[in-house]
Amino acid sequence: MIIDCHGHYTTAPSQLQSYRDAQIAHFEDPARPLAKLEAVSDDEIRESIEQNQLKALRERGADMTIFSPKASAMAHHIGDEAVSRTWTRINNDLIHRVTQLYPDTFIAVCQLPQSVGVPVSNSIEELERCVLELGCVGCNLNPDPSGGMWTGPPLTDKAWYPFFEKMTELDVPAMIHVSGSCNPNFHATGAHYINADTTAFMQFLQGDLFKDFPDLRLIIPHGGGAVPYHWGRYRGLADMLGKPVLTEHIMRNVFFDTCVYHQPGIDLLFRVIDIDNILFASEMFGAVKGIDPETGHNFDDTKRYIDALALSEVDRRKVFEGNVRRAYPRLDAALKAKGR
Amino acid sequence: MIIDCHGHYTTAPSQLQSYRDAQIAHFEDPARPLAKLEAVSDDEIRESIEQNQLKALRERGADMTIFSPKASAMAHHIGDEAVSRTWTRINNDLIHRVTQLYPDTFIAVCQLPQSVGVPVSNSIEELERCVLELGCVGCNLNPDPSGGMWTGPPLTDKAWYPFFEKMTELDVPAMIHVSGSCNPNFHATGAHYINADTTAFMQFLQGDLFKDFPDLRLIIPHGGGAVPYHWGRYRGLADMLGKPVLTEHIMRNVFFDTCVYHQPGIDLLFRVIDIDNILFASEMFGAVKGIDPETGHNFDDTKRYIDALALSEVDRRKVFEGNVRRAYPRLDAALKAKGR
Repeated sequence: MIIDCHGHYTTAPSQLQSYRDAQIAHFEDPARPLAKLEAVSDDEIRESIEQNQLKALRERGADMTIFSPKASAMAHHIGDEAVSRTWTRINNDLIHRVTQLYPDTFIAVCQLPQSVGVPVSNSIEELERCVLELGCVGCNLNPDPSGGMWTGPPLTDKAWYPFFEKMTELDVPAMIHVSGSCNPNFHATGAHYINADTTAFMQFLQGDLFKDFPDLRLIIPHGGGAVPYHWGRYRGLADMLGKPVLTEHIMRNVFFDTCVYHQPGIDLLFRVIDIDNILFASEMFGAVKGIDPETGHNFDDTKRYIDALALSEVDRRKVFEGNVRRAYPRLDAALKAKGR
Repeated sequence: MIIDCHGHYTTAPSQLQSYRDAQIAHFEDPARPLAKLEAVSDDEIRESIEQNQLKALRERGADMTIFSPKASAMAHHIGDEAVSRTWTRINNDLIHRVTQLYPDTFIAVCQLPQSVGVPVSNSIEELERCVLELGCVGCNLNPDPSGGMWTGPPLTDKAWYPFFEKMTELDVPAMIHVSGSCNPNFHATGAHYINADTTAFMQFLQGDLFKDFPDLRLIIPHGGGAVPYHWGRYRGLADMLGKPVLTEHIMRNVFFDTCVYHQPGIDLLFRVIDIDNILFASEMFGAVKGIDPETGHNFDDTKRYIDALALSEVDRRKVFEGNVRRAYPRLDAALKAKGR
């Protein structure tokens, strides 16, 4: 099987964005009408999926996608906690409908109702609902709900611990994924995403999070940000900070995905990072939607880059299936229940 | 010749830090005595250089270093503009003394008296002093004087233009280099530095700075942050944003240095980025001071990684000498004046 661990519902029917616009308008001016989500039919969902993610998935030769709401639209910095909670539930419910319509192809990961200055423990209830009632196999955790202002504590701060405890109890991993940026210094997909990946890794390096949570599993997307390219810097910093080697200190608990949109980057990732820590992903349709004039193929058709590597069959299966089933045990259980 | 474009005076005699401590103490409590720099003798400077940078330079087989004050100590977020101005002058004067003692080996690049919320145009006077009186061939420009809070405008904002105009007039480049971080999310050398490099590049991608300043030259250190690893992402984003290809849009004006501390990273840099845009650098002694147990050599001995590449003699000369003389015309002029 070929499982893409990183897909977002960026093609949802327009009722979703209309709701969001009305929700924000009402928040900014309570005299404006309360937002209401217009009904979305199954056919509309089917069309939005079949013409897009499902089509590309089939064309590119993958079998499944771990699917979550559009990351840049989580926007935990907009509105307040009530706004975030309602918006999050609507998105998670919609993802759930996709997975019900295509149970063999899409499996859900949920958004969380994080909000600026609000304890992440307030997101536990929605995590439980999504995992226990909607069949979600993981969550997307925003390390910076302030949207590029970075006003909250690092991921190693005890403030995050209740949430990590619940993740461990439910045996679900989190992808560390920021959302949009309201800081004009940071373009969302070109700077904020990649910076957040690098930042999260360095936070883990500085801290001792995985001593306290030996079973916690976290995915750093977009190929681990800048980390593999600067692997020597991080190995050296671990040494200078008196930490164990990275393979012990971090890489028992952290995975990098393959959302790196050119062959040389993928080559580096696989050269530097242990095969057991790499999860196939393309993030379609996400940051980069075009066709690379140098190859004639989509930038985000990352399977091609991996296919071009001289991987053994054992390693290939790890990257496309084995590692992700290990990182997401509830995915593994769901597949096994279907004899897959 | 082999010229390292990125060295900091991280080994300055202790009087410098004592001054800084007293300066900050006085700023925080004006009842404390006014800071005064205790005399630093030429012998003390010689010892601080000969046992460190000069020793390593010779051992590693380089000829010259473009030398500037310790980047993490610029700390434009500490104190106010007057504090920054005094601290900056002291540092630049000390760098000048190093270059006077070792005129064949060190040439100066200056720190700027940036400060939070203060127009960068206020740094023009010090830039002129350093270039015209102290022989500086460039400057280190901090894209985030707030030290990880990112409260200022992006580099493409018109607020930076008066400074870029002066740089163009003086024909000096700037290395885009942040300083320490007061944001607990960002470790200085492990996250803030690399994030700033990535951020600056993406700002250039979003903007049209080099249309307005076709002769401006900027160096993005630390191998360009995450950019070469994600070169496909940036090529794709340029396309999506309707910008020219990166080689036209940015790379006529921007250089990446080679402060990437392992062989696979250097291999990627040279595979992806045009040879004309790469400047040899090691940033010693900077972020990573240890010895790589995998190689037995210093992580920051970047010359070894470059020597291991199969570069033609023409390309080798570009990386070690030609490109940096082109990026820093005042360096080239100074060398030519000595028949080098």
